[in-house]
Amino acid sequence: MAALLHAGGQSAAEMAEVAERLTEVAEHLELHAPTREQRLVDMWAGEGVTRHDPVTGPENAVAPPLALGGLPDGSIEGRVTLGLPYQGPPGCVHGGVSALLLDHTLGVANHWAGVSGMTGTLTLRYHRPTPLFEELVVRARQVSVDGRKIRTTGEIVAGGEVCVSAEGLFIDKHLPRPGRGAARD
Amino acid sequence: MAALLHAGGQSAAEMAEVAERLTEVAEHLELHAPTREQRLVDMWAGEGVTRHDPVTGPENAVAPPLALGGLPDGSIEGRVTLGLPYQGPPGCVHGGVSALLLDHTLGVANHWAGVSGMTGTLTLRYHRPTPLFEELVVRARQVSVDGRKIRTTGEIVAGGEVCVSAEGLFIDKHLPRPGRGAARD
Repeated sequence: MAALLHAGGQSAAEMAEVAERLTEVAEHLELHAPTREQRLVDMWAGEGVTRHDPVTGPENAVAPPLALGGLPDGSIEGRVTLGLPYQGPPGCVHGGVSALLLDHTLGVANHWAGVSGMTGTLTLRYHRPTPLFEELVVRARQVSVDGRKIRTTGEIVAGGEVCVSAEGLFIDKHLPRPGRGAARD
Repeated sequence: MAALLHAGGQSAAEMAEVAERLTEVAEHLELHAPTREQRLVDMWAGEGVTRHDPVTGPENAVAPPLALGGLPDGSIEGRVTLGLPYQGPPGCVHGGVSALLLDHTLGVANHWAGVSGMTGTLTLRYHRPTPLFEELVVRARQVSVDGRKIRTTGEIVAGGEVCVSAEGLFIDKHLPRPGRGAARD
């Protein structure tokens, strides 16, 4: 995928032949694929760690992938270097890609802290351009749990400086809404 | 890319052979690719419309791609149906992918309105799960320009209901900062 984008339209490679070879591979895979319904069951049948998400999933070609790990202080951290497929402004990471990485990392930080929820609000602040081709540190931590409301923060750091920071408000759907008595989704 | 993820680890396809064929294609492409520096020049040499971004770019396999068009009322709109590579919760679009689509669409709405800037703050509100495999409408419009500050909003709609809404504050770097006299970046 990265090689395709790197080559570009000016490449001397035989692009029609490349397209034909990729189509052949896709057709071969589709011939042997389970139904969509069966695949959706299979991909969620594990023990909580998914391999298919668009940020950390090693089986998802969209994912950089970012490898996240839990730290003893309760936070989550990962390192990643992004190439051309993730470009926004020239030579810089797309702001929406930074949002994607942070949204996911905040969710993993909630999981690591033991209380998870659905994203209610996510606020991103862009402090400086995030560089391509340089190692980025992506971090997040759960800050507070107040009833159903979970607050989580994170940031993307390059060369020791914060490029993007994020604040998320997550809602724990397992707890009842105030004044409603019983849990409902 | 979608076929690989759809097939999954339980597939009867010869995955080692698939990996070998994909590696061969990548090596062929890399052999004919320009240097990274040259490619960065080439990919930004057009007339403002890029073909490589991770949201709308037809040359970027990461992109769904979303096809955006300008409307006579000054807003921007596009339609897209997302599959397994963009999954967050089971059967739903990843919240970070929605953020990626909206960040980009807000930027395009600014461009369409004639005044663009760098993203300062982006706030996303998640109203209901965004479905996979259903047509989504992605919309954005520039709301106001006040000195350097540009405000832009957008939403992702499925079946007539807003799933995610976004508000962006963009900074026009072409104008001087208040009280500083001259433009600087």
